[in-house]
Amino acid sequence: MAQQERGKRSRRSILEAAAQVFDERGYDAASTNEILARTGLTRGSLYHHFPSKEAIALALVQAHAEALEVPERPIRLQSVIDLTLEFARRLQHDAVLRASVRLTTEQTSFDCPPQTTYEQSMDTILTLLQEAEKRDEILPGVDVREVSSLIVGSFTGLQIMSQAYTGRADLPQRTSVLWKFLLPGLATPGLVGRLRTTPPEE
Amino acid sequence: MAQQERGKRSRRSILEAAAQVFDERGYDAASTNEILARTGLTRGSLYHHFPSKEAIALALVQAHAEALEVPERPIRLQSVIDLTLEFARRLQHDAVLRASVRLTTEQTSFDCPPQTTYEQSMDTILTLLQEAEKRDEILPGVDVREVSSLIVGSFTGLQIMSQAYTGRADLPQRTSVLWKFLLPGLATPGLVGRLRTTPPEE
Repeated sequence: MAQQERGKRSRRSILEAAAQVFDERGYDAASTNEILARTGLTRGSLYHHFPSKEAIALALVQAHAEALEVPERPIRLQSVIDLTLEFARRLQHDAVLRASVRLTTEQTSFDCPPQTTYEQSMDTILTLLQEAEKRDEILPGVDVREVSSLIVGSFTGLQIMSQAYTGRADLPQRTSVLWKFLLPGLATPGLVGRLRTTPPEE
Repeated sequence: MAQQERGKRSRRSILEAAAQVFDERGYDAASTNEILARTGLTRGSLYHHFPSKEAIALALVQAHAEALEVPERPIRLQSVIDLTLEFARRLQHDAVLRASVRLTTEQTSFDCPPQTTYEQSMDTILTLLQEAEKRDEILPGVDVREVSSLIVGSFTGLQIMSQAYTGRADLPQRTSVLWKFLLPGLATPGLVGRLRTTPPEE
């Protein structure tokens, strides 16, 4: 048991160090040497957990899914909004998320499988939108599949631009603006005014 | 005169070759050797036009601005929509544009000045939206500066996602979806139904 615990801990420490290195340098310029130097582990221990740099990148991208925690709200559209606002906030500090986003959006020799990030985000949002649809929160005629793809695509660009301008400091604000302008074309008129597009008070 | 003409032509051929190489490999993996090999020019000729790889990248990013041709339409919001649809179409084939977008959105050792791409796009769109505002095409209370930033950010992400899924084949379609959902929160109600969100018939 103690050994299993140690194993888990070193796996986690490799992922965290690798996330920092990928986030700072991108995939191609990142080296396992630098990742090792930041963990203090041996190369043998690294290869015990991950056979290659690519395997580490893949594990990081998969960790993306765990970050998609759905906030429970009485209005399902509010859950979608809060999911994106919370994701925006976490991107400011969470190296694993930042790395997974960079690995997904940049074209490198790491051939990132789109299903692990875009598809997971779209699936989570689509499920919420379908529930919202059943509860008559969505305008008639709206294609919720189209909307989930639009939200993921738009958010992807907003976070890149926010990174370039403010190191992601203004990402929650940019996410709020996205919702302010999407909702009138998406939500039933009575609902638009009742939805909060800014982060909930802590 | 003939010499000046030759100079222009070799400058253009360097930019086109460099655009291909940057678009395929990204900034850091691109080499001036490969750029030279594709032009057939000498290294002396290359350095005559551009002192460094960085100078070539900067020239490509500046070429971005020339691509922002504003289509003249009676409704100014239609001009904005068509500007983005035309840009989406050109991104499918124009190596210079593709390279400038990749150089802007990826974090590399090329420290891309955001004013050359994001700001140019936002300025062009903002000017159109301000004209639209004066013509009462915009809903009262809309912050057009916020909207131009939102359009540029969202489009940036949509084109990255479109590149990952279809090599940008579905980018005009994704751009149409963006407009379909933005317009109800942006345009005056009477106008929404009169705006075309798909590319004009050729």
